[in-house]
Amino acid sequence: MVSDGLDAIFSPRSIAVVGASRHRGKVGYAIMHNLIVNEYQGTVYPVNPNATSVHGVRAYPTVLDIPDPVDLAIVTVPAEVALEAVEACGRKGVRGLVVITAGFREIGGPGAEREAKLLDLCRSHGMTMVGPNCMGVINTHPEVRMDATFAPTPPLRGTISFMTQSGALGVAILDHARSINVGFAKFCSLGNKAQVSGNDLLEAWAADPETKTILMYIENFGNPKNFVRIAREVTKRKPIIAVKSGRSEAGSRAAVSHTGSLGGSDLAADAVFAQTGVQRANSIEELFDDAMAFSLQPLPRGPRVAVVTDAGGPGIMCVDELVAQGLQLAELAPSTVDSMRAWAPPEAALANPVDLIASATAEDYERAMDAVLADPGVDACIAVYVPPVVTDEVLVARSIWTAAKRRDKTVLCTFLGRSEDSPGFVELVQNGIPSYLFPESAARALAAMHRRTMYLARPEGSVKRFDVDRSRTEPIVTEARGRGPGRVADADAWRLLEAYGLRTARAEVVRDAKAAANAASRIGFPVVIKALGPDLVHKTELKAVALDLRDGAAVRSEATAMARRLTARGLALDGFLVQEFVRGGKEVILGMTRDKVFGPLILFGLGGVYVEYLKDVAFGIPPLTDEDARRMIRSIRTYPLLEGVRGEAPSDVEALTDALERFSQMVLDLDGVDEIDLNPVIVLGKGEGYRVVDARFVLGPSA
Amino acid sequence: MVSDGLDAIFSPRSIAVVGASRHRGKVGYAIMHNLIVNEYQGTVYPVNPNATSVHGVRAYPTVLDIPDPVDLAIVTVPAEVALEAVEACGRKGVRGLVVITAGFREIGGPGAEREAKLLDLCRSHGMTMVGPNCMGVINTHPEVRMDATFAPTPPLRGTISFMTQSGALGVAILDHARSINVGFAKFCSLGNKAQVSGNDLLEAWAADPETKTILMYIENFGNPKNFVRIAREVTKRKPIIAVKSGRSEAGSRAAVSHTGSLGGSDLAADAVFAQTGVQRANSIEELFDDAMAFSLQPLPRGPRVAVVTDAGGPGIMCVDELVAQGLQLAELAPSTVDSMRAWAPPEAALANPVDLIASATAEDYERAMDAVLADPGVDACIAVYVPPVVTDEVLVARSIWTAAKRRDKTVLCTFLGRSEDSPGFVELVQNGIPSYLFPESAARALAAMHRRTMYLARPEGSVKRFDVDRSRTEPIVTEARGRGPGRVADADAWRLLEAYGLRTARAEVVRDAKAAANAASRIGFPVVIKALGPDLVHKTELKAVALDLRDGAAVRSEATAMARRLTARGLALDGFLVQEFVRGGKEVILGMTRDKVFGPLILFGLGGVYVEYLKDVAFGIPPLTDEDARRMIRSIRTYPLLEGVRGEAPSDVEALTDALERFSQMVLDLDGVDEIDLNPVIVLGKGEGYRVVDARFVLGPSA
Repeated sequence: MVSDGLDAIFSPRSIAVVGASRHRGKVGYAIMHNLIVNEYQGTVYPVNPNATSVHGVRAYPTVLDIPDPVDLAIVTVPAEVALEAVEACGRKGVRGLVVITAGFREIGGPGAEREAKLLDLCRSHGMTMVGPNCMGVINTHPEVRMDATFAPTPPLRGTISFMTQSGALGVAILDHARSINVGFAKFCSLGNKAQVSGNDLLEAWAADPETKTILMYIENFGNPKNFVRIAREVTKRKPIIAVKSGRSEAGSRAAVSHTGSLGGSDLAADAVFAQTGVQRANSIEELFDDAMAFSLQPLPRGPRVAVVTDAGGPGIMCVDELVAQGLQLAELAPSTVDSMRAWAPPEAALANPVDLIASATAEDYERAMDAVLADPGVDACIAVYVPPVVTDEVLVARSIWTAAKRRDKTVLCTFLGRSEDSPGFVELVQNGIPSYLFPESAARALAAMHRRTMYLARPEGSVKRFDVDRSRTEPIVTEARGRGPGRVADADAWRLLEAYGLRTARAEVVRDAKAAANAASRIGFPVVIKALGPDLVHKTELKAVALDLRDGAAVRSEATAMARRLTARGLALDGFLVQEFVRGGKEVILGMTRDKVFGPLILFGLGGVYVEYLKDVAFGIPPLTDEDARRMIRSIRTYPLLEGVRGEAPSDVEALTDALERFSQMVLDLDGVDEIDLNPVIVLGKGEGYRVVDARFVLGPSA
Repeated sequence: MVSDGLDAIFSPRSIAVVGASRHRGKVGYAIMHNLIVNEYQGTVYPVNPNATSVHGVRAYPTVLDIPDPVDLAIVTVPAEVALEAVEACGRKGVRGLVVITAGFREIGGPGAEREAKLLDLCRSHGMTMVGPNCMGVINTHPEVRMDATFAPTPPLRGTISFMTQSGALGVAILDHARSINVGFAKFCSLGNKAQVSGNDLLEAWAADPETKTILMYIENFGNPKNFVRIAREVTKRKPIIAVKSGRSEAGSRAAVSHTGSLGGSDLAADAVFAQTGVQRANSIEELFDDAMAFSLQPLPRGPRVAVVTDAGGPGIMCVDELVAQGLQLAELAPSTVDSMRAWAPPEAALANPVDLIASATAEDYERAMDAVLADPGVDACIAVYVPPVVTDEVLVARSIWTAAKRRDKTVLCTFLGRSEDSPGFVELVQNGIPSYLFPESAARALAAMHRRTMYLARPEGSVKRFDVDRSRTEPIVTEARGRGPGRVADADAWRLLEAYGLRTARAEVVRDAKAAANAASRIGFPVVIKALGPDLVHKTELKAVALDLRDGAAVRSEATAMARRLTARGLALDGFLVQEFVRGGKEVILGMTRDKVFGPLILFGLGGVYVEYLKDVAFGIPPLTDEDARRMIRSIRTYPLLEGVRGEAPSDVEALTDALERFSQMVLDLDGVDEIDLNPVIVLGKGEGYRVVDARFVLGPSA
């Protein structure tokens, strides 16, 4: 139904502008103006009870007075009368609404009520609505040509579709895009997203043949679970590039260290983007740079880049950024270099970067580009051009796009020192070559394209379903809930882990030193003992832990001493945990925190200081596929330690992958649990698995 | 002498253009054209044997034919006749030369010879020369107005002076600067730097009242020691912002791990920049963004930033980048917020970021800026403006600069969606407000300014001189040299460390197991033993190390077993190192590698995997002041581990600082040594010092 309504919104045969105005400066004027001046291909009906015509077009007092059917109504009247106008639209049989009018949920209490009524009207009349509080919609298709916004700059036609949660930013972006010759297929300012959501548009644009690249400016996710599902499908077919504001929430939390506080929602957003293949741009500038590249050029097949330049310095700077972004400088075949030697001046440096020196002509560029693009060792080429005094930059631009069109390899360009409306620049962009003022921008955009190549090539994996007896696990959580929020008792935590098949270190909870020694004999030496008690959270600081005890006597004497020490400090002692001492292996951490928006967020990292000071952790959103789990493990910087360095045996990464998959299932099942820390988990050598040594489950206040 | 010559180059009363041409497209034409069209205030004498006039100005066959004195000659004739022309200049008494002509050292063999002769001519005639192979020089001072380049765009007058090692880049940058309204005081394309170097210009521009900010594009350092000395002085007075290409050399080495290979010269450059206060820009775009900020606005006194915006989204993006860059969102005083409430619309959000919403007028901006700039909790303000349809952007721009001028706080602006030549943009820049297209750029530029604030505030420290008996150390190195390049014997390394007062773990070198046990008794238990032999480099892998041996019997049996194992594998065994086993403490590494350009480069980091996989290391260029040493230690990400976490005692950072200072002196003294690794050094608790446990000194092939 929404998709049907979206059709009425983006490709209406007739539009009513409710609140069309004769007064310049009014939104209802600007929208009429934009529709007419940009030659909307259907029929526009201004609705204004106080005018007989607007912009020379016959006006009607209400929508109901329009003699013909109306597909779409653009509502610009004040909030006070908006509901009435919308109801008239419903009675008229209007199918699509774009509500520009502000004064709804964004102003709080009475506005939110008004928005609920608005939504009711849409539902009861079967209307689909964008907004309210938005800046309008655009479709540049030649059979539609609809600019139903009040933006001052009409967009060029292109293959990018752009949705924005900030109307102001949307207008600014249309402005900027025009100035750098970037065109759009569709544009939608989402406003309050009362009905039509970003997810709806993603689905619609995924199916839209006019849209090749989808851009999003996001402030928050309405339905993150749907977003994950939909985006995962869409990115298989089309690139989605997103800017999400709100990074600094993570920034402000960077000082804090444990799982809970590491899980700011921006990290969750990052994890969502990584798992769904949505490309995150770090700034609006990057959004554009990437959009231009994706919409104009094919993806590079690999990371090997050739740089052709007429000036050494800028060439090096381009290479610097390419390498920093993880791309490679292609090694040119000797035959490629030889073929250039035939015509290049002797001073030219023909190894990659190919430096044609300042005397380079348009012909030189064409021949050099032909040569490097023909080289099978080259996946992409960046042409760097510093216009000297005398060459004609348009001729050089023409050579570059001409050579590029002969091959289906990726070509980007830098026209250093020129503004984006200089003739060479325009020549390039209009002929399909993404062009940038600075070499670093071109390198970054190419790297973004290559990331998509990699994403498309990576195996998807699948979500395994482990056989867990929930009739055993549910009572544990229910009982714990009964005791209120806070930390779940260790024994319960242990039973949950075991139910999900997570391997724990053998352990027993006992009351006193003597029982500890007996338990140790059952478990097998060496053992660890840990004092248990409500105040004993930071056990190491309190010396409430003793490691590597090798016989019963040692266990008994350590436990006795520990009890004496803690009691002397007035700390209550409930007993001891006696646990298998896991020798060797590496400490890792598996964690879960519940993000306000995204729900559970899984963390993996090497234990101890790696997590605390180096933030060497990976995040994932459950359910994790096996490939997601593997990628999380491999993505930490200290992953080589798990592979084994300096003659050490490799760790059991496969068992760890399995653990993450089981953990993923567990966190989705355990609804009331807000935080889990399995820390440390000791991963042993290949084939030997891992042991969860300590586990902390925290129930949320709502549980 | 050079400074006198530079005066002739930058402020000549008369200029001879040797090779002035009547033909458009020739360099000798472009330079004449630029001098005349841009109204050079002195007298120009074209020199051309085949023309009676050039550009309407009487021409002379040679310089010697000019009837008046000539301060500066611009040489554009072909390389073949350049020496002859330069000699004529010398005989004429010309004081300054700018040699545009190419075909010198940059083309290799014969060119290098020609360059040597050129330099001889300059020296013998007392001439100062910029170039050869350069693009010329500019001075925009109204009494000079000299554009002696062949760049197509004359620069605006401003307070930035810019030197570039790439002429092409220089021209492109002049072009771009003009398009964003950034002006220059002086410009110099350095070319081959045969005589006048970047260092000479740094000294001259430090003293130049017209120059407020110095920009450099650097490909390599001619004399890095001088650069360090000079830059350190200059940055106390004026900001130096530099782009250095060649970052990717470090990138390509990033996979390798030990001290030697971590010391790529780009890391050295980074260390130089950090120690001298030169601000490194990561791209040409950043160079400009920073230059505009530094040249137009005062430095922020602190990190607290207010953001005033008319649109939420861009405001958040600005804050995101501010926080990511280490700045803080200022907390506005309640009175500040109240004062805005008096006039702001109810929908406006008046906590920082101050969101005036889309209806914001020019007056609103002025009042809001006034309010936040008057707040003592605000050090700087970024005004974010998204031009809506109807407001006049020039009025808003005027409000912003008007409010900014009333206080001496830092103000930057973002005019989102506008191009850099839009009227609001121009209004701002011309009135001293650095303005950017994107909010992230403004945030980054402000952060660069704040880094300078911090640099100027930090104590300089001093280089200590430790009393070392070089009559003891020199023979050690001399003898080692006699044995050829490669690793210095452990005993010698140990003696060197001790001579410099570096504290080593007590140790003895012995021949066999029995002697090891005896040595251990002298040293005191527990001890470590390490097998010594030419092939025993990776001792852990070879099991050639035994730790924590607690009595003589253990030492003897371990040593015997070790000897048997190694001999069985055919590895030669020279004996054992018996060493105090240092318990507790943290492993750190002190290293030195000799950079081709900068000479010794000192590395500090936490030991083990922190260095290898996390690259958590700091670099410094000796001589290190005590403050340099302290900063190196504090700058690693794992520094909190040294301060003590989770109830651990803090490490002896002061002793470590002393160690780095001594190490710095040692590496400067030991000329032939190419690499030193003190790894591990175990740093103990506060007051307990550290022990160097293993040391590797490597003599270079040239030694």
